[in-house]
Parts: sequence; C-alpha cells; structure tokens
Amino acid sequence: MPQPAEWRDGALRFIDQAALPHDLRITETRDWREVRAAIARLAVRGAPLIGIAGAYGVALAARAGDDVPAAAEALASARPTAVNLRWAVERALAAWRAGGAPGAEAEALQVHDEQRQADAAMGELGAALLPDPATVLTHCNAGALATGGIGTALGVVKTAHRQGKRVRALVDETRPLLQGARLTTWELAHEGVPHELIVDAAAAGLIARGEVDAVLVGADRIAANGDTANKVGTYALALAAQAHGAPFYVVAPLSTVDARTGDGAAIPVEQREPHEVLSFAGAHPAPEATQARNPAFDVTPAQLITAIVTERGVLRPPFAQAIAVALGPAPVVAR
Amino acid sequence: MPQPAEWRDGALRFIDQAALPHDLRITETRDWREVRAAIARLAVRGAPLIGIAGAYGVALAARAGDDVPAAAEALASARPTAVNLRWAVERALAAWRAGGAPGAEAEALQVHDEQRQADAAMGELGAALLPDPATVLTHCNAGALATGGIGTALGVVKTAHRQGKRVRALVDETRPLLQGARLTTWELAHEGVPHELIVDAAAAGLIARGEVDAVLVGADRIAANGDTANKVGTYALALAAQAHGAPFYVVAPLSTVDARTGDGAAIPVEQREPHEVLSFAGAHPAPEATQARNPAFDVTPAQLITAIVTERGVLRPPFAQAIAVALGPAPVVAR
Repeated sequence: MPQPAEWRDGALRFIDQAALPHDLRITETRDWREVRAAIARLAVRGAPLIGIAGAYGVALAARAGDDVPAAAEALASARPTAVNLRWAVERALAAWRAGGAPGAEAEALQVHDEQRQADAAMGELGAALLPDPATVLTHCNAGALATGGIGTALGVVKTAHRQGKRVRALVDETRPLLQGARLTTWELAHEGVPHELIVDAAAAGLIARGEVDAVLVGADRIAANGDTANKVGTYALALAAQAHGAPFYVVAPLSTVDARTGDGAAIPVEQREPHEVLSFAGAHPAPEATQARNPAFDVTPAQLITAIVTERGVLRPPFAQAIAVALGPAPVVAR
Repeated sequence: MPQPAEWRDGALRFIDQAALPHDLRITETRDWREVRAAIARLAVRGAPLIGIAGAYGVALAARAGDDVPAAAEALASARPTAVNLRWAVERALAAWRAGGAPGAEAEALQVHDEQRQADAAMGELGAALLPDPATVLTHCNAGALATGGIGTALGVVKTAHRQGKRVRALVDETRPLLQGARLTTWELAHEGVPHELIVDAAAAGLIARGEVDAVLVGADRIAANGDTANKVGTYALALAAQAHGAPFYVVAPLSTVDARTGDGAAIPVEQREPHEVLSFAGAHPAPEATQARNPAFDVTPAQLITAIVTERGVLRPPFAQAIAVALGPAPVVAR
C-alpha cells in the first residue's frame, strides 16, 4: 500500500483520499497552503495523519520563507476537533523557532516516526484483547490512511490477522463521506482481512444479535476524563455495545488526549457543509430545497468505554486517573 | 400530493417510489404480477401500503381469471417482515372466496379506507402527545407514501402542524435506499413542515445534546409483547432516546400487530441484496470486490418504547396486556 503522506526531497507527497478507492491520485506539493486545503477537504484525514501533515506543512512554510507562525496557525485551525493537529503543528513550530527550517523538517519526520511506532505498539496491545476467532465492528477509517503507520483501530485488526488470529470485520460505511465504504474496505482488502460492509444504521441490530465480539474505533480527541470525540455515529455504537455486553475499545495515541479539555461537553464538534449530506459522487437524492445538518463528530462518554488502547498501555476505568498516569508528570500537550 | 396507490376502473395506479423525488412516475397495471414486483423492489413500500397493494393485487388476479389462491400466496410472500401484507391479502382472498372478483375488489377498497381512517385517528392521538414547540426525529418514511392515508409517524407530525403546533422534524436519510432523504423530505415540503436532513449516524449525538423532544417511527411488525420490527436503524434511535429521556413513540395501525408472534426474536428480518449497500444513488463508492450485508429491519425491544399509538388508542406498558385489550376478543389476524 502506498504511503498516505511522505516527505521526499523537501516536498510532501500525499494520497488524495477523496478520490479513493477508484482513483489512486498522489499529489506532490511544496506549498503549505495546499496542505491546509487538503486537510480541510478531507483529502488528507484521520486525527494522527492531519497532525503529521500539519507538521510537514510548517516545514514547507519554513523552507519557502513564508511567515511560519501565520502558516502554523492556519494549518492548526484547518479543522477544529482533532487535537493532534494543533499539537503536531506546535511541535514543528517550536522546532522551527529553535532550529529554523531544518529543525521544523526534522521534527515533522520525528512526529511521523513516533506515530508509526505508536501504531505498532497499539496494534500489539489491542490484538491481545481480541478472542480467536473474532468479529470486530469498525467505524470510519482508523487505518494506515488515518495515521501514516498501520493505523489505530484498524492496526489492531491487521496485527491480529498477521498473528494468525481468525479475525473478520464488519465495516460501517460511515456517511456522509463513506470513509468506511471507500477506505477501510480498501485497506482490509490489501491486507487480506475478511470483511463485510454494512450501513451505519445496521450496526446496533447486529450487535444485538450477538454477531460482534468487539467494537474498535479511533478517536479525534479524548478529554481528561476519557470522554471521546470520534466520527459521527460512534456514540450509537457505544450505546449498543453496552446494551449487549460487547467490549467497546478506543484505540488512539496519547497525542489524541487533550489534558486541557476536562470532559466531552468542552470538545468543539465541527459542523461541516450540508452538501456532504445532500449529495454523493454527483448524485442528489433529496429534493432541491432540502436543508441539512452535518455534525462531523459525536462524543462518547467515558462510562461507555471498556478500555482505551494507547502506545503506553491499555487504559482502564477510572480513565481520569489512568490518563494522568499515562501522560506522566508533564501533560502531553506541553511536550 | 398524488395518491401512492389508487384503484381506478379495474386497474391499480401507483407511484413508483424508487424514482422519487426527482421523477413522479405513475404506473397503471391490471396484472397482479406487476404489483408483486413493485412491492419486492420497493416501488410500493411501507407496511400498510404494501398490504393495500397486495389486496388490490388479489382483486386484479380475480378480475383477470388467474389462479387467485396462488396469486395471493405470491403477493403475501413478496416481503417477509411486514405482517400487514399477509393480513390484507388474506382478507381479500377470503372475500374472493365468498363473493368472487367483486368481493375481492370491495374488500381491497375497504382495507384502504380503513387505513385512511386509522391514519387520521393516529394523527390526532399522536399530535396530542407532542409539546409546542416540538422537534421530532423520524426515520425512514412513515408517511402518506407508506400508508395511503396521511401516514403513521409522519401523519402525527402533519396533524400537529395543521393544528398550529410549531413542529419541526429532523429526518434520518435512511440508508441504503434513502427513504428519509427522498420521500419524507418530499412529503414534509409538500406539507410546509420545517425540516432538516441528517445522516442516520448523527441522530444519537443530536438526541444527546437535547435537541429532540420525541422520536416518532412507524412499524413493520409488532409482536404480542410489544417488541417492534421497523426499518434498520430504529433500534439505535430507541437506545439513544432512552439514554437521554426522550420519548420514543411507535405509530402503527393494529393491523401491524401479529398476535401469533410472541416476541421480537420470532420476527423474520428480511435480508436484502448487497448491491443496495454497495451503491449510493447510482454511484459505487466501495472497491469492486467488497461484499456487503443488508438486513432491512431491526427489532426494538418493548422496554425501550414509551407508547404505541394505534387507531384505537395510545397503548402504554405493559404492552402485552394493552395490545390484547386493543385487539379485542378476536385477534386481528383472524378477523
């Protein structure tokens, strides 16, 4: 599988995920503005990956001699919910202040490398939680395309599969932008993991019928108490999992934790354009005059989460304490 | 708004709902096989309406001199979950046995007329349950297009609106066939009821934010204990409503009750073709090789239902008793 984002000879190459799976389009740019636009329109997406791309964007701005703090602020605000974005951009900006363009570039590469290592660690820790055989339910895309490594939730599935566990996946299509139908299916097919696509609304009924051994999702922001913002639709899965005793695992690097956000009510939920709901791939199923609302995320309260799989260990309730311990004496946002 | 099904001069005219909202296509047929095909491909849909169409189909078979019992069986088995279909077909068949083709035709017209009256009664009873102002959440299409009257769940919304209540609707798009995006929006626009379309996965988050005063859904089959099969996705709404104290109302005529089905586990859930999931309004977002599962319904347990609004009154828990009383001494299936 090609890299979703790659630094090469002072340029960023990235897969335009909006065109997948039918068109594998790779864009190469030296302009941080193009990186910001790609993040905003979800050509580059997934909380960890937009952080990595944002950091590379800072390096591009520095190499181009642009106003680096202004570019960093524009990149960090390209999307509001994922906290990794600002965290990674701020790391690159601090490195630029200390070491100029080479410093920013080295730091962006370091952020990317840390994510690869974190993914591998989460994959091992998460795979150990799955029975054999296991049917897991996933939502959106929390795979390589979302992180630049092997993925978070999907990295767990891949790791279990590589270990020889008989794991299969039910894949929520994830309206409106169909990241499950377009991206997760594509990754699982590459990896040879058996899977079936379902509409998002079918998940609860399948959980009720006992067909799901575990729900695995990524995260865009985890508050200090464990409340977790993730792709819209995640909360309904957590409710169904709890109602039927299926474990509900969040798989996310500690860079996703925002220690400055006390609980889920304080997480800003991005409201995206109505046209994403009203249309898909040129089709407009609704009447012309129809209005739509398009919240991109929802918040799953910590009480519904069985465990949070991080690169430093599997966190169990009470999450406030487990998160504080995992972050160590200095909060991750201030590293 | 044109009638979704209408008997005229010995023929059945129906709207091809698969072509709505952009194309208002009316088919006229004297062939019961065409009625069966329309039911199977959801050109005619909605539990009460497929019952009405099935009864007209029996009348068409009788007029054409076809094998009426065989036609009746083929019509009754066109879709497995909605019990109204078999119930209405059996009424028309019994009337044919007693009175030939005129008997079947009169009985089909009677089934249709009873549904119109039931819808009006449910509309009044349900509207009285709504506060003013009220934001209601609906799923699929439980409107005129589903019943041949003013609708069940949507009939409640329309009645409240006509009474001057300030009611607005959040409309689940209802993947895979988008009955909410295509049909419910179309009906609400005709009626002048303010509404916004959302993806199915957004409903739970909006309920959690306190934006929904009531969830209103129809039903395809209600078991003797109150467990209710309805369009896939309904169960997740009921879980979210319960988690946040929002009332969850099922609006359905008593012909939807199957006294011979003890509980939800005994309700057959139709599994439809994967291509409905794999395509979106003509587009094919998933990779070529992707497999899909497509359960058309799920079952909401009675404990999650606040009330069942029927034409004979608003039933409250315990539903087994309330349903038995509403059905009267003879079960509705044996009328």
